[in-house]
Amino acid sequence: MQISLTSGKKIKCLPETSILESLKKAGIYLTSSCGGKGTCGKCRIIIKSGQAVSKSKIKLSQEEINKGYALACKTFPSEDLFVDIPKQSMLAVEGKVVTGKSKDLQALLHLTGAEITPFTERVLLKLPPPTLDDNISDLERLKRELFSKGMACLRVPFRFMPGLAYTVRKGSWEITLCTMHTEDCEEIIGIAPGNKTTPQYGVAVDIGTTTIVVFLVDLTNGNLIDVASTYNSQIRFGDDVITRIVHATEHNKLKELNDAVITDINILLSIICNAHSIPIDSIDCFVVAGNTTMTHLFLGLDPSGIREEPYIPTANAFPLSFAGELGIKVNPNIPIYAFPCVASYVGGDIVSGVLATQLYKKQELCIFIDIGTNGEIVIGNAEWLVAAACSAGPCFEGSGIQHGMRATDGAIEDVKINHETLEVELKIIGENIKPTGICGSGMIAAIAEMFFAGIIDQKGKLQKDVSNRVREGENGLEFVVYSGEGRDIVLAESDIENIIRAKAAIYAGFSTLLKEVGYTFDDIQKVYIAGGFGKFLDIEKAIMIGMLPELPKERFQYMGNTSVTGAYLCILSRKLRAEAEEIAKKMTYIELSVSHSFMNEYISGLFIPHTNIDAFPNVKKLMKR
Amino acid sequence: MQISLTSGKKIKCLPETSILESLKKAGIYLTSSCGGKGTCGKCRIIIKSGQAVSKSKIKLSQEEINKGYALACKTFPSEDLFVDIPKQSMLAVEGKVVTGKSKDLQALLHLTGAEITPFTERVLLKLPPPTLDDNISDLERLKRELFSKGMACLRVPFRFMPGLAYTVRKGSWEITLCTMHTEDCEEIIGIAPGNKTTPQYGVAVDIGTTTIVVFLVDLTNGNLIDVASTYNSQIRFGDDVITRIVHATEHNKLKELNDAVITDINILLSIICNAHSIPIDSIDCFVVAGNTTMTHLFLGLDPSGIREEPYIPTANAFPLSFAGELGIKVNPNIPIYAFPCVASYVGGDIVSGVLATQLYKKQELCIFIDIGTNGEIVIGNAEWLVAAACSAGPCFEGSGIQHGMRATDGAIEDVKINHETLEVELKIIGENIKPTGICGSGMIAAIAEMFFAGIIDQKGKLQKDVSNRVREGENGLEFVVYSGEGRDIVLAESDIENIIRAKAAIYAGFSTLLKEVGYTFDDIQKVYIAGGFGKFLDIEKAIMIGMLPELPKERFQYMGNTSVTGAYLCILSRKLRAEAEEIAKKMTYIELSVSHSFMNEYISGLFIPHTNIDAFPNVKKLMKR
Repeated sequence: MQISLTSGKKIKCLPETSILESLKKAGIYLTSSCGGKGTCGKCRIIIKSGQAVSKSKIKLSQEEINKGYALACKTFPSEDLFVDIPKQSMLAVEGKVVTGKSKDLQALLHLTGAEITPFTERVLLKLPPPTLDDNISDLERLKRELFSKGMACLRVPFRFMPGLAYTVRKGSWEITLCTMHTEDCEEIIGIAPGNKTTPQYGVAVDIGTTTIVVFLVDLTNGNLIDVASTYNSQIRFGDDVITRIVHATEHNKLKELNDAVITDINILLSIICNAHSIPIDSIDCFVVAGNTTMTHLFLGLDPSGIREEPYIPTANAFPLSFAGELGIKVNPNIPIYAFPCVASYVGGDIVSGVLATQLYKKQELCIFIDIGTNGEIVIGNAEWLVAAACSAGPCFEGSGIQHGMRATDGAIEDVKINHETLEVELKIIGENIKPTGICGSGMIAAIAEMFFAGIIDQKGKLQKDVSNRVREGENGLEFVVYSGEGRDIVLAESDIENIIRAKAAIYAGFSTLLKEVGYTFDDIQKVYIAGGFGKFLDIEKAIMIGMLPELPKERFQYMGNTSVTGAYLCILSRKLRAEAEEIAKKMTYIELSVSHSFMNEYISGLFIPHTNIDAFPNVKKLMKR
Repeated sequence: MQISLTSGKKIKCLPETSILESLKKAGIYLTSSCGGKGTCGKCRIIIKSGQAVSKSKIKLSQEEINKGYALACKTFPSEDLFVDIPKQSMLAVEGKVVTGKSKDLQALLHLTGAEITPFTERVLLKLPPPTLDDNISDLERLKRELFSKGMACLRVPFRFMPGLAYTVRKGSWEITLCTMHTEDCEEIIGIAPGNKTTPQYGVAVDIGTTTIVVFLVDLTNGNLIDVASTYNSQIRFGDDVITRIVHATEHNKLKELNDAVITDINILLSIICNAHSIPIDSIDCFVVAGNTTMTHLFLGLDPSGIREEPYIPTANAFPLSFAGELGIKVNPNIPIYAFPCVASYVGGDIVSGVLATQLYKKQELCIFIDIGTNGEIVIGNAEWLVAAACSAGPCFEGSGIQHGMRATDGAIEDVKINHETLEVELKIIGENIKPTGICGSGMIAAIAEMFFAGIIDQKGKLQKDVSNRVREGENGLEFVVYSGEGRDIVLAESDIENIIRAKAAIYAGFSTLLKEVGYTFDDIQKVYIAGGFGKFLDIEKAIMIGMLPELPKERFQYMGNTSVTGAYLCILSRKLRAEAEEIAKKMTYIELSVSHSFMNEYISGLFIPHTNIDAFPNVKKLMKR
C-alpha cells in the first residue's frame, strides 16, 4: 500500500504501521509532543481520500473529523491514501529565528572575551614526500610536520593507523588532519587526503526533558547555520524524569529511552543538513547539555541511582565519548562532550546556563532561573554559587496544556484583553499565519490578562458570567483564546491550574533558596531567566501572576534557551569549556524538597499573584484599580 | 559425516573440507609449516579405516602410504573415517622446556635491575557506600579512592561508563580496577565487582616470519606459566616477507595475512589456557615483537611501502591497540603493545633482542645476531647502535628443508659422525622419543660433521662413495641421517645448499657491517646469538661451517629466542619498556643489500668454512688433520 501526499511524494505504508511511523521511515517527521501516544493532538494530517482506521480522535473537533483530520500516530491505512500534511504538523528547521540569533550569539561570545578556539580543528599538512635520505615512516613524517607547526603532543588512536599509508599517498602527501584538544594533548579524530579544511561544523544540543534543540554552528566563525527543535520523544515513556527513570529501571528499558533521544537528535540533524545541503562528514564535534537524568539517558548510563536516596548518579563529569559509541549518525570518530552536572537534580543544562549568563564572573549577587520541565535556580556571583531544583512541570513548553505548543510558528505568544470590552487581541509567531496553539509567554500573558479582566479569580477559577468566551468544554470550563474555523484554541480550567502550580513552584524555589543563603529579594541585582517561553517573555506579566518577584524591571534579563547557548559557547572556545568545568565544581547543591519552608511557600503561591500580597506592592495597586 | 579419533573423540567433517580444517574447527590443531599447501608433510595422520581422497602424498614413503599415512591438509573424507593422529603431528604446548626457562627469565629480569612493574595492574578498591552526606557520583567516588591511594591521574574510556553503576553495586562497593600505565596517566582497561585481583596474566608474543611463539606470564611474580609455538600460517602465502607483502598489495589480501597470524595466536593462547585451566578473562595485556612486516601484518597496517624504494613503513612506533580492535579472543579492552621498529628491515624483534641482551648498557663493543627467516645484526654498546639485515632464509627453523623441523620434541638437535667408522650418533629433543626431523642446531652439526668426515666437499656436494648413507633420493643425492621404520630422515644436497647459503649470508652480514663501522672481528668482545636453533647451539660447529667468525668460544653467548624474551621483560617492567623505546630511537639502520662488499663476502662464504680460509686458522688446522 502507499500514501500519496499532496506534495506529490509517494511513500510506502502497511496496515499495522501507523501513518506517523510510515512517514518517519520515509524521512518525513511530524511534531509529536506525546511521543506517539495519541494524546497531544499535534501530528494532525488530513486524509483527502481512502479508508483508514483511527484509534484516537482526541483533540479533534467533530468538524475537523468531518474534514478528514486524523492523528497520524493513531491512524492506520486500510488502503491507498491521499493525504495532506498541514504545515503546522511538520517538524521543521526554525530558519526564521536564526538571522537575529546568530548575531546575538556571536556578540555574546565576543562579550565573554573568549577567542574562537573550537573544540575540534582541521589542519592542512603538506608533507615532504619520502626519499631514500628521508625515509622515516608515514606516522613519524606526520608528527614531524605537526611538531614544526608547534603541535608538540599528538595522540593517535590506533583506529587511524590502518588507513594512514593509503590516505597520505592518495592525497599526494597533502592531508587534512582533524584533531580535538583534550586536557594535555591534541588527539586525532580524522585524517583525510587533500585539503578538506572547510567546511567544518559543530553541533550544540540542549536535551530538555520536554524539548530537544539542535544548533548547527560554523566552527570557523561561530556563525549559527540553523536551529531545529522537537519534543523529546521519550515523552511517550513519561512526562518527567522520575517516570522515565522508573521506565529505565523497573521495566529495564534504558535502551528504549536512549534510542528515543538519539533518534530525535539524528532526525533534527538530518533535517538541518538537508535544508542547507551540508555534508554529514563536515560535522566535527558535538557539545550536549541536559539535566542529569537526560544526560544519563543520552549517554546510555544507568539513571536508577538518581531516583532513590541518597540520589547518586553514575557520574557528574563525563568522559568524552564518540559518535559511533552513541549511535549518532555522523562520522563515528567525532567527539561528544557532555556538560558536567552538579548533582542528581542540577544538571549540565544549568552549568551551561550559568556559563551563558556569565554570572560566575559578576561581583553583584545574581539569580539565574531556568524554567523547563524542572525549574532550577542558581544564586551567586564570582565568589560562590548555590543551586536548587523545583519541579515546575512542562506546561510552559506546551506539554500538558490542551492547546499548548512550543514557541514556533503558529504559537500565540502574547494575549491582551480589553478590560472594558473584554475583546481579545493576540500576537502570533510567524507572518500571516493562523494560530495553532499557545506557548509559554502566551500562557503567562493570558493568565495575567484574564485575572485583571476578572475572568479568573485569585485561585484561577473561571468566572462563568463575565465573558461569553467562557464555556463548558469537554474537560470542564474553558476560555476560548482564539476561535478558528473548525478549531478553537482554549485554556481549560485544568490548564490554568497547571500553570498556577508551575508558577507557584518557581516562586517558592526563589524565595526558599534565598532564605537558605540568608538573603532577600532586595539583595538581588540581576535576575537571568531562561526557558522555552518564546522570543519575548513579558516580565511584568510574569510578575503580575506571581511567578517572578517584584523587582525593578531592569534587573530582569530574559535569555531564552541558555542551555543550548552555553553549548554553543563551549563548541567555540576551549577557555569557556574549562570555565564550564570550573562552574560545575564550584556550585553547591541545596535540596529544597525536604524544606518545610518550600512547601509553605509553594502553597502560598497557589494564588494570583500570592497569598502574601504585600510582597507584590505594585500588583496590589493594580488590583485595587 | 564424521571422523572418529583413536582418542575416542568424534568430529564432524564434510567431503569438500580438508581433514586439517575439520580438526581445526573442532579445536584440534596440527603442525603445518607450509600453512596447508600440502608441501611440508608435517600434518600427518593415519587413516585406520574408511575412504578418503588424498590430493598430495608429498614427503610420504610408499610404505607409509600403505600404512594409511596421509597429509591432513590435502585429504578429504569420502565417508566416515577412523583416524589416528601421531603425537608429532599435534601442535602442543611446549611444557617440557619451561621449568628451566622460567627461572632463567626471572634471573634475567633481576639482572636488568628492574622491579616488577607490569604493563597492567589490578587494584582492589573498597569504596565507602554513598550517604545523603556523601552523595558524590559513582565515578567521583572511584576517583577519590584512587587519589587517596596516590593515583592522581586516571583516564576513563567512555566504554566503561555504561556498566559502572551496576558493577559498583553488584560488588557492594568493592571493585577491582584493572589499569594500564600510559605515558602520563593510568587508564582503565577493566572494572569488575568484588575482589578479582588474582590471577592476572600477560602474554608475550614473538611473531617470526616462520615461527610464532607465545609466552603466558604471571604478572604478579614474572613466572612463565607456559610456552606454545607454531609455524606462522602466513607461510601458505609465501616463505619470506617480500612475497607476503606482494600478496597483501597486489592481491589485495592484507586481511588474509592478518587473519592468519591472529588465528595462530588465538589458537596458541587457547591451547595454553586450556592446558592450565586459566580463565581467558585473567589475561590483562599483550606485548608483541616482530619484524617490521610481521608487525604491520599483525596490526592490519598496509605493508606495501616496505617493499618499494624508498622503503617506508606506515609506522615504526605503533600506538597502543586493544584486543577487540585486532580480533584477539580475550577481553576486547586489554591493551596490545607492539615493539617499536627501527626501519623497514630492522624490526621490533631486534629491538626486543637488544633489550634482552642488555648490550645497549655495555661499555665494550658487542654484536647481536638474530638468525630467523631474516638475519639481523646489531653492533654497538652503551654509546651507539647500528643495525643491518641480511636475508638468511628460514632453513634453521626447519622450513624449506625436507625433514627440517622446529626445535621441539622429536627433533635431531645434535649429530656426531665417527671419522673412522662413519657411524652416526644422534641427540634427540625429548625423552625416549624417535626422531621425526632435524632442527637448526642439528643441521649445523650435521654439515660440520659431514664435512670433516669427507661426506661433503667444500661446496657442500655429497660424495657418493664415502658412506653407504649417501644415496639417490627423489630429489637427487641425499644423506640418511636417521633410518627409521618406514621413514628415514635425510639431508638432501638441495637442503645442504640451502644451509650453506644461509650461513654465507650471516657471515657476510657480520663482516660487511663491521667494515662499514670501521672495526674488525678482533674488536668484538661479545657475540650474542639469537634464533630458533634449539636449546643448545654448538658454537664450535657453527664456526667450523663458517657461519660464525672464529673468536674465542667464551665471547659467544647463545640466547635462544630473544624476541620473545624481550617481550617478556616489557610485560613486567615499565622501565624496560621505556628502554625499548630508547633503543629503537637510538639505533641507526645501514642498508647492506646495495653494498658490493656484501655480495663479495656472500659469494666467498658459499664454501666450507670460507674461501678465505685464513680467517679460520683453527678450522684450517683441523682440516689439515
